[in-house]
Amino acid sequence: MATHAEASPAQQTPLGEYIFRRILDQGIQHIFGVPGDFNLNLLDHIDSVEGLSWVGTRNELNGAYAADGYARTKGLPGVVITTYGVGELSAINGIGGAMSEGVPIIHIVGTTSRSAQKNCLMLHHTLGENRDHNIFRKISEPISAATAFLPDDATFTTEVDRVIETCFQVRLPVYLYVPLDTADILVDAARLSQPLNLWPDSSKETTMEIVDSIVKRLESAQRPCFLVDLFTQRFGITKEVQELIKPLNIPGYVTPLGKSILDENDENFGGLYMGAVTTKKDVKEAIESADLVVHVGRCPSDTNCGGFTHKLAEKGTLVGLHPKYVFIGDKRCDEVSLVPVILELAEQVRAQKPTIQSPGWWRRNSAPAQSLGPFQGPLQQRNFWSHFQPYLRENDCIVAEVGTSQFGTLDLTLPKGSQYYTQIFYSSIGFTVGAALGTLVAQREEGTGGRCLLFVGDGSLQMAVQEISTMIHNNFKPTIFVINNAGYTVKRVIHAPTRAYNDIDPWNYQLML
Amino acid sequence: MATHAEASPAQQTPLGEYIFRRILDQGIQHIFGVPGDFNLNLLDHIDSVEGLSWVGTRNELNGAYAADGYARTKGLPGVVITTYGVGELSAINGIGGAMSEGVPIIHIVGTTSRSAQKNCLMLHHTLGENRDHNIFRKISEPISAATAFLPDDATFTTEVDRVIETCFQVRLPVYLYVPLDTADILVDAARLSQPLNLWPDSSKETTMEIVDSIVKRLESAQRPCFLVDLFTQRFGITKEVQELIKPLNIPGYVTPLGKSILDENDENFGGLYMGAVTTKKDVKEAIESADLVVHVGRCPSDTNCGGFTHKLAEKGTLVGLHPKYVFIGDKRCDEVSLVPVILELAEQVRAQKPTIQSPGWWRRNSAPAQSLGPFQGPLQQRNFWSHFQPYLRENDCIVAEVGTSQFGTLDLTLPKGSQYYTQIFYSSIGFTVGAALGTLVAQREEGTGGRCLLFVGDGSLQMAVQEISTMIHNNFKPTIFVINNAGYTVKRVIHAPTRAYNDIDPWNYQLML
Repeated sequence: MATHAEASPAQQTPLGEYIFRRILDQGIQHIFGVPGDFNLNLLDHIDSVEGLSWVGTRNELNGAYAADGYARTKGLPGVVITTYGVGELSAINGIGGAMSEGVPIIHIVGTTSRSAQKNCLMLHHTLGENRDHNIFRKISEPISAATAFLPDDATFTTEVDRVIETCFQVRLPVYLYVPLDTADILVDAARLSQPLNLWPDSSKETTMEIVDSIVKRLESAQRPCFLVDLFTQRFGITKEVQELIKPLNIPGYVTPLGKSILDENDENFGGLYMGAVTTKKDVKEAIESADLVVHVGRCPSDTNCGGFTHKLAEKGTLVGLHPKYVFIGDKRCDEVSLVPVILELAEQVRAQKPTIQSPGWWRRNSAPAQSLGPFQGPLQQRNFWSHFQPYLRENDCIVAEVGTSQFGTLDLTLPKGSQYYTQIFYSSIGFTVGAALGTLVAQREEGTGGRCLLFVGDGSLQMAVQEISTMIHNNFKPTIFVINNAGYTVKRVIHAPTRAYNDIDPWNYQLML
Repeated sequence: MATHAEASPAQQTPLGEYIFRRILDQGIQHIFGVPGDFNLNLLDHIDSVEGLSWVGTRNELNGAYAADGYARTKGLPGVVITTYGVGELSAINGIGGAMSEGVPIIHIVGTTSRSAQKNCLMLHHTLGENRDHNIFRKISEPISAATAFLPDDATFTTEVDRVIETCFQVRLPVYLYVPLDTADILVDAARLSQPLNLWPDSSKETTMEIVDSIVKRLESAQRPCFLVDLFTQRFGITKEVQELIKPLNIPGYVTPLGKSILDENDENFGGLYMGAVTTKKDVKEAIESADLVVHVGRCPSDTNCGGFTHKLAEKGTLVGLHPKYVFIGDKRCDEVSLVPVILELAEQVRAQKPTIQSPGWWRRNSAPAQSLGPFQGPLQQRNFWSHFQPYLRENDCIVAEVGTSQFGTLDLTLPKGSQYYTQIFYSSIGFTVGAALGTLVAQREEGTGGRCLLFVGDGSLQMAVQEISTMIHNNFKPTIFVINNAGYTVKRVIHAPTRAYNDIDPWNYQLML
């Protein structure tokens, strides 16, 4: 007697369609990428999935950037599709940025057929005499949290599910290689009704122990605070963290990579902390005087931490919550992670526990943001940004390129519901031009009516300029501020202000459009 | 007693300058790339080396493409400089193309300092929690024939020399990682007077045996011929091969990747052979009737061989000469390579050996190229290219993008001294836009007065369009033919003529300039 019934024909669907249904079912409505001869038959299946749409980008690097920007804005994985070899390698730096800054991306690569792989055919896009068609998978291994190569019909659907699940569980890029001959093969569609396991297992007992320990410290501390960072947003616990801090009535600070996770108009918002290079003196003094700092979703990179100059809880306890570990002072635990700890802590706060010794121990000195009237005098880095403040609106998404744009926008006070991101850790220039496209797509899906405000230097814009064409093609209306300083200004400041290698030609940016 | 005298201070030079002097000494006069904070102090040393100049590109992928185009045109390695992580990964697909099509490129990457590497600092451009600064080297391993990471002062110069030598010896990309703290360290400049070993060792005895065997076959064959391919040009033996075929008075054919190696106006030029998809019937019939085919510099990829449809010497002997092996019929030898065999064969031909049984066994039927008068009727793929023929001039370099441009230009008859290349094997679209910049630079260095004619489709142009700005900045005057077919036409032909994912927005290309 057979233990498993064969799926009836009615329950079968082509593999390509299975993949795209799984993607749509998670809430992802758009896919980015570039067609190529090894992914065309896969792309056809997008049309079969109502509610899912294709956004073609002008090159693959920009496609990966767009998927990244989509993920940051939407809070769900971005998806990019490229073709074997030439396409996937062109995208690799965009995926590297996602690996670096914890952005979930599903990178789907249409590859050579399984028979061509087996016979090591010297097909176009392969690497010369090296006829191992898996060679590109080896190249992408360090920037991928999980990879499926679909060698075997019997495991198609479990492999697809595995990489999508991993992408959600760890919020990092994953690779799904789809051989040319597989996209049209029928698979069991009944499996689509089984929900994916999007959260990693976590020890309830250890989580409770850790949360108890944090609660005790919150209750005994004289000057407790939160420092909110990158992974809070990536793991979709922004709301929980916001709702956790407010009733405790203690300040919540942000890092550059955490900016916009907290409502900057809330009276508990402490400000932006960047160690020694923190712009506001009172912010720096307050957080550095805290005797308990709970660093939520920490990303301790040089540029996110003012060049490793954080001085946190030097006379108290630093708590670090990270997707892969948690530490309380010197005690580190690798069995629990950020998410269950925050969820449980939020639960306890809702139950009116813990009791803070000195709520409101800190009040902000900085005056709230206000309009400075019409702009006068020459446009300079030091006076431009404050005048820009009143231009911001609720639900805007501000996308700030590495460098000059970043330094200016980090000090803006963001209106309610607005988003902000900048790739301050990976720092790949040109990133924001592609990423803004992803943000525009996500904003349209969400329908909040917020604008996308892109701040980008001329050097960075020229890296990825063709994607403005895609924005126009899709009838988007981003507001692009080109910080046109005729060169790689940050590099001029770091080194060699007059060398010609930092020069960039002026373009007529308005005419270009 | 010390066995090695210390170099006197007068004989010392900074490592950066040492690297650039070695490069210039090989005849390379321009370097491409993008500045980044980990390569700025290295770039400074370019200015110290008179005769060497920097060509900044708008992004790193285009920089790698430019180095590739320079190498193809100049016959010497191209050099591209990028910065750690973000820069090198952006360039990787360009280096992949060079690995695939045997183009020598020296990719110099400015990396983090050795102390930062040792301490695994979480610096910007690193990959998140993975703090191994060598991770990017692992990523580039499959596309690099040799890599130096310069960990130790004592071996700086030997390591630099080693990778440059390998680049010449194997004509493939190599990687030179220059840590931030090393570019200014003084090294022994006396070593610069020692010439590099640019050719691999080869067994003289085995070479003679193989050449004797080929000569015997040339003498006994009734219908011998040569098929000239890719590596002939890469290894700088174009002239030797030309001079070898002429006195033998037998036909020389070319593959797509070998096009322009033989003078197409020479009466011994047989034509372009692409197996089953060879355009000219008489060419196909003649080469397929040969009983001895010496395939020089062979690259047996699908697209270079008409989808694996070569039918060569089916009633005779096929001789294959490759950089890594030689075969004569079924007998393969891995100890000798293309170059010594060709040099020795050229020597024997000069000494009036071998004697061909039936010289001139073949005569070309195809009429020579001629002007077709003014163009009339609608512009279509099938009538455009022949009318373009009279536009070509001596010493032009024709750069043809993958796809429509390639199919048309392969059938043009090239004037004397002209060059032609197309990336038909690796087939990365957008390649030619960056590569044409490299060609323009090489042409200016050579001073032949030839033009650069770039044939590119709209989809490909948009991939890499910003490099036109670099051409203008450097006062180059390329002639760019945009085959504007509003989409990825090749992909339309392969698959799905009406799908929207193959659409491309029309740009106003003239206004853009």
